[in-house]
Amino acid sequence: MTLSYHGRAKVFLEEIGAEDFSVVLVKTRNNVFKGVLLPRPLTEDDKHIVLKLNNGYNIGVRIDKVEEIKLLGQKARKVISPSEIIKAEEYADVSIIGTGGTIASRVDYVTGAVYPQFSASELLSRYPEVEKIGKIKTVPLLNIFSEDMRPTYWREIAESVARELNSGVKGVVITHGTDTMHFTSAALSFMLRNLTGPVVLTGAQRSPDRGSTDAYLNFLSAVKVAAQSDLGEVVIVMHQTPSDTYCAIHRGTKVRKMHTSRRDAFLSVNSHILGIVNLKEMIMFSSYSRKAGEGEVEVNTKLEEKVALIYAYPGVDPDVIDFYVDKGYRGLVVAGTGLGHTPEYIMKSLKRALENDVTIVVTSQCLFGRVNMKVYRRGRELLKIGVIPGEDMLPEVAYVKLMFALGNYTEKSEVTGFMRRNIAGELTSSLSLRLFPPTNQIYQGV
Amino acid sequence: MTLSYHGRAKVFLEEIGAEDFSVVLVKTRNNVFKGVLLPRPLTEDDKHIVLKLNNGYNIGVRIDKVEEIKLLGQKARKVISPSEIIKAEEYADVSIIGTGGTIASRVDYVTGAVYPQFSASELLSRYPEVEKIGKIKTVPLLNIFSEDMRPTYWREIAESVARELNSGVKGVVITHGTDTMHFTSAALSFMLRNLTGPVVLTGAQRSPDRGSTDAYLNFLSAVKVAAQSDLGEVVIVMHQTPSDTYCAIHRGTKVRKMHTSRRDAFLSVNSHILGIVNLKEMIMFSSYSRKAGEGEVEVNTKLEEKVALIYAYPGVDPDVIDFYVDKGYRGLVVAGTGLGHTPEYIMKSLKRALENDVTIVVTSQCLFGRVNMKVYRRGRELLKIGVIPGEDMLPEVAYVKLMFALGNYTEKSEVTGFMRRNIAGELTSSLSLRLFPPTNQIYQGV
Repeated sequence: MTLSYHGRAKVFLEEIGAEDFSVVLVKTRNNVFKGVLLPRPLTEDDKHIVLKLNNGYNIGVRIDKVEEIKLLGQKARKVISPSEIIKAEEYADVSIIGTGGTIASRVDYVTGAVYPQFSASELLSRYPEVEKIGKIKTVPLLNIFSEDMRPTYWREIAESVARELNSGVKGVVITHGTDTMHFTSAALSFMLRNLTGPVVLTGAQRSPDRGSTDAYLNFLSAVKVAAQSDLGEVVIVMHQTPSDTYCAIHRGTKVRKMHTSRRDAFLSVNSHILGIVNLKEMIMFSSYSRKAGEGEVEVNTKLEEKVALIYAYPGVDPDVIDFYVDKGYRGLVVAGTGLGHTPEYIMKSLKRALENDVTIVVTSQCLFGRVNMKVYRRGRELLKIGVIPGEDMLPEVAYVKLMFALGNYTEKSEVTGFMRRNIAGELTSSLSLRLFPPTNQIYQGV
Repeated sequence: MTLSYHGRAKVFLEEIGAEDFSVVLVKTRNNVFKGVLLPRPLTEDDKHIVLKLNNGYNIGVRIDKVEEIKLLGQKARKVISPSEIIKAEEYADVSIIGTGGTIASRVDYVTGAVYPQFSASELLSRYPEVEKIGKIKTVPLLNIFSEDMRPTYWREIAESVARELNSGVKGVVITHGTDTMHFTSAALSFMLRNLTGPVVLTGAQRSPDRGSTDAYLNFLSAVKVAAQSDLGEVVIVMHQTPSDTYCAIHRGTKVRKMHTSRRDAFLSVNSHILGIVNLKEMIMFSSYSRKAGEGEVEVNTKLEEKVALIYAYPGVDPDVIDFYVDKGYRGLVVAGTGLGHTPEYIMKSLKRALENDVTIVVTSQCLFGRVNMKVYRRGRELLKIGVIPGEDMLPEVAYVKLMFALGNYTEKSEVTGFMRRNIAGELTSSLSLRLFPPTNQIYQGV
């Protein structure tokens, strides 16, 4: 029996013997709902249960409003096939933009090293099953490992994505090296507006010519999300667990590669995952995600490249700040300590940078949680001299966003306004206690 | 019922209805053991059970070697009081070195900000219960927030710790701000050799004058570890969960502040926790930890401060490497991407640094996992030009270790040898699959 609920909701559902995908009847004071009990991420609360109704909509019901609940049938798993969940075409056009990475690599059995060697169309011929999901078009764009990704390539990818979506495909998959995939997903999240379909980055931690490769599940799951989901945002689809069970769907601005080698190396940070997907099914925790719009995708590739990311640590040299200022940098993202702090002895250089019209955004090297610069003296001093608090943004995301802000705005108030406004899901107003320690699991006890 | 085992061991123990602290009789081919079943961290395997025998020793028994197991009694929790677990004096001398931080702070109710205001002895008078654990001596050393911690203060703390231990106290507690506590714990781990007792850093995420403070449990647990454990290493003791249940005991070189504000902000990285502790009990997963030695504590505070920590990311300016080289830096720790990579276009500057006799250590900004520079072309190129792979060290720990290495050795081979040798538990030969995603939990389903 699998029941993904926790706490009070778990006790409540166990009483009637319900499990994920059971068909249940729920009576509240004013309504009666019949539906399929959907799995729920661990990171959500234990006060609600979520039903997929026959009309296709999901509804969350507060358990303390429930006057009666009845189990009508077990395991309605087949009832909610992906197409029913998200009302997408069964067969859609998908463009695959190849940029390289391990997913397009082979092991050189002489040296044991891995080299990027083949294109998206070769990947396609390796996995012909993908043609069952959609009509595929491949777009060879780059063939590099992602440590060599650069802001100028983000522009090329963004333009290519816009071109493909505006040519009428349902969604786009970008095959990409994993090292900096989360930088690219953040950059695309800011560069692309009014998305008419899903933009899905995927890759592999083991090359496709190895028995242990994760490329198969990642690639087919990514194509499935591109073809069949109603997402209108940039996401990363990579293994949810070390096994070939499901992939997790991560928001492009709330995800980070957190392990050097594991298949489940990507974790959502300060966000739960948007859904899970494998070859058989796709489950979206969809109240949270952005839906695809209509019309034309807009692309804006203006970036100020004179932005640097620096870390605050005991012994950090303040002269490095002066170095960037003197070199004409326009922005600095500081990964501060704790709630957003920096050593006292670098304050002078930060102040000088601000006086030279350099924008400074402070995030936290803790990665998880939110900066709060009003609690301690140092935070208040930093606010007073004019830094911008990065809230719950990852340092990497703040870096990309500041490049975009400074590429598009000149007035200080505009830049500040842009950095403090939620543009692509990168700022979250409140963080659930269950988001830490991080996990991609939605089932308890896995 | 609480049973902290997982997988096969869980099934095995559930069959006889055993739970943590049950008294069991175990027969193998050659032996019969009677003992108390000890809890086991989730991050350990499911092939063994661990018993506390009457003679005070812990023994791990492979379950597939067990011919018979019998439950003799439930809940022998009282049988293993801390003193029995670790054979320590019930009452010991402990020195508390105060350095400031939130644990020594008050809220200013006019501005709402928090200021460091009181000393370790005032903390003591706030928590008189601590006198039941040991005879306490307070050593006021600093009164700063930890963002202002500097390498020179690490030296003062190390000297103070050595002085206290060599004066005959059983253990030392250092009250410290949380922001950079893990830098200090790493520095002390390298600076102090032949520890004759536990060196325990602790702090608070909420000041002690708040109802929600975590200072009480952290402080008393830290004193308990200092007074009653047989550890001979530097550890951090902070909340294990958001509630006042237990504190986790983290190895000083394998821990990081991973959340800006939570009480359970510290997580062990690439390591399981060494144990858990609260006011009633202390459970050490002790096969793993280093034991206190005899004789004199040695202190070595030689550090080369011309070492910098830099991050590799798309768009990073290679000139910053030249800047450090030209300024006479002796070492650079690069937090590379993935398995330890850097962009192609910064290779020239890295090569120039190496040619100028600068030592470069490459770690991973993923934080979790190990660098492996033999898999991909870039890793091989980096090894070829002469960088040192940082294995599974955190970038912060590699930074501190490189300062120490360059402070003590001049020959390149000596520095390299030191960096690649495990000195204070910072390098781990193999990482359990269960160490990621990270958790401080030892009980499943909490």
